[in-house]
Amino acid sequence: MPSPEPRGTHVTLADIARHATVAESTVSKVLNGRPGVSATVRARVERSLHELGYRRRRADDAPGAAIELVVQEMSGQWALDIFRGVQRVASEHHTAIILTERSRRDRGEEWIDRVIQRRPSGLILGMSQLDAAARHQLVVRGVPFVIVDPAALPDGDSPAVSSANWEGGFMATRHLIGLGHRGIAAVTLPTTLMFARARHAGYQAALEQNGIVPDPDLTVVTGADRDEGLAAGLRLLDRDPRPTAIVAGNDLQAIGIYEAARSLGLRIPDDVSVVGYDDIPAAEWLWPALTTVRQPVVQMAEQAARMLFTLIAGQPLAITRLTIDVELVARGSTAAVTEG
Amino acid sequence: MPSPEPRGTHVTLADIARHATVAESTVSKVLNGRPGVSATVRARVERSLHELGYRRRRADDAPGAAIELVVQEMSGQWALDIFRGVQRVASEHHTAIILTERSRRDRGEEWIDRVIQRRPSGLILGMSQLDAAARHQLVVRGVPFVIVDPAALPDGDSPAVSSANWEGGFMATRHLIGLGHRGIAAVTLPTTLMFARARHAGYQAALEQNGIVPDPDLTVVTGADRDEGLAAGLRLLDRDPRPTAIVAGNDLQAIGIYEAARSLGLRIPDDVSVVGYDDIPAAEWLWPALTTVRQPVVQMAEQAARMLFTLIAGQPLAITRLTIDVELVARGSTAAVTEG
Repeated sequence: MPSPEPRGTHVTLADIARHATVAESTVSKVLNGRPGVSATVRARVERSLHELGYRRRRADDAPGAAIELVVQEMSGQWALDIFRGVQRVASEHHTAIILTERSRRDRGEEWIDRVIQRRPSGLILGMSQLDAAARHQLVVRGVPFVIVDPAALPDGDSPAVSSANWEGGFMATRHLIGLGHRGIAAVTLPTTLMFARARHAGYQAALEQNGIVPDPDLTVVTGADRDEGLAAGLRLLDRDPRPTAIVAGNDLQAIGIYEAARSLGLRIPDDVSVVGYDDIPAAEWLWPALTTVRQPVVQMAEQAARMLFTLIAGQPLAITRLTIDVELVARGSTAAVTEG
Repeated sequence: MPSPEPRGTHVTLADIARHATVAESTVSKVLNGRPGVSATVRARVERSLHELGYRRRRADDAPGAAIELVVQEMSGQWALDIFRGVQRVASEHHTAIILTERSRRDRGEEWIDRVIQRRPSGLILGMSQLDAAARHQLVVRGVPFVIVDPAALPDGDSPAVSSANWEGGFMATRHLIGLGHRGIAAVTLPTTLMFARARHAGYQAALEQNGIVPDPDLTVVTGADRDEGLAAGLRLLDRDPRPTAIVAGNDLQAIGIYEAARSLGLRIPDDVSVVGYDDIPAAEWLWPALTTVRQPVVQMAEQAARMLFTLIAGQPLAITRLTIDVELVARGSTAAVTEG
């Protein structure tokens, strides 16, 4: 009777080579993203890695290997907060961080090949999407990864740290309802982004819980920048009756709504209340200072890094999907509704 | 007659070992910051490295070695801009970037030991100070480095990229004089920082060129944060006669001055004009939008990275100290002086 096939961390390069009928050096090339392997052979090796359930052992890592943090091109503060959270944990482990900012134009799978060639001991992905092909590349090579603030609902196997987006949308709206507002408009990012969908659902739930029927005409779906917030603000504030409050999809949109109000001669919060989302440093510098939902990005990244080092050590995760609380920060941009 | 001693890139580990009367493995340990060498032996090897003028050859680098970017804990936007500039160049060279944010509390030389252990092929230092001991560690090991935005005047041998600070201070002040201001106050960072000293000298020169004697009572020396700008603003705007304009040391201080003006019931620019320095994104989001001196941090970092890759390739630099132009961005926070 043949001995059972090896599994997981017991699988050696020799096992893979035998299974795929290639040389061990070829397996090593595929594992480390080095060139000189045909697409056919590479696919065969990847299939064997997958079928034998290969998991990289710590000893396979280069000594003092770095972890890699890949962030999507986005708001500067967001990327920096993620870096700071990861660094807190990485420095406890005396591990360096390779930082890569992925351009929005950087389509295709080349980026993941480059990441694999650098042989990081693990990856933190702060990016809107991890496509299935890139994910597969990491999984078959046994490179552990954790996603921060995922834009799509990750499959059950991908470890991820999110914030409580639905609750954030709910809190922002409930705060306005508590101040007497009922004509509450929403500016939201496209609901193909999971976090945007959750926040908007929270907004709708808060309205409904207070007997207000959400009016689809009071929702503008648009991009993440100030200019898009400005255009959305102009459109909403030009309506009759005018909404008395606007919940923005993020702080940059809220900054655009400030501009829209100013250009229409409306005062914040006297004529219209505004709530942002994120709590970037500038939220406090605006006049009036912006009421917003604080997303604890540093802590999210810290948790993701702790999960990653657990995976690198070959330990199982107690929780694969973690959600961190958000908090409403009330400042000067919201006030009790004035009698028309 | 003995053959002349080898110099520079011709020096081998064996030459160093012979010169210092230690084993080659000991030289390697010192070069790569590994433990197991006594302080005495380490000093002897470093002396030999220095005396023989050791320069690391490309072939000594690990394949695909990363460069390391060390930034001082500071304004988020500044650190991110430096990263982006370096990344533009590093990606052309298919080189990864290890990013390290050095805490202000992180005194001592340990940080440079950790950097050396990671064996980067070169370093970009975005930090206020590179002390002599750390510099020596890099020089004797032949690790090339370039300083971005140095706070101290680097010695002639250290490659560095600065911006035109004196010109920036001059432009900001000349802009206000052109609007009819004469009572122009200055908030400045401590003049132990070279860039702060240069900017303040530019301010003074612009006044003097226009027949205005700089009044030392109109200068407040303080820290880089908004709160410090607020305190400085309160002090200056409480004076009689009140200055009609303030030149701030950076945009965060200017944001504090906005708050000071507001709390005293003064309008910007009607009652007081304000000029910032840096042009952070929030400068445009303030109301009124902030007139400021734009520092091209991304380009500075890009130039520094180009210099670093030249050094890594073993080529000499055409220019060791590079200065990049700044630009005045006139927005809503400055206006013609009103007749008292």
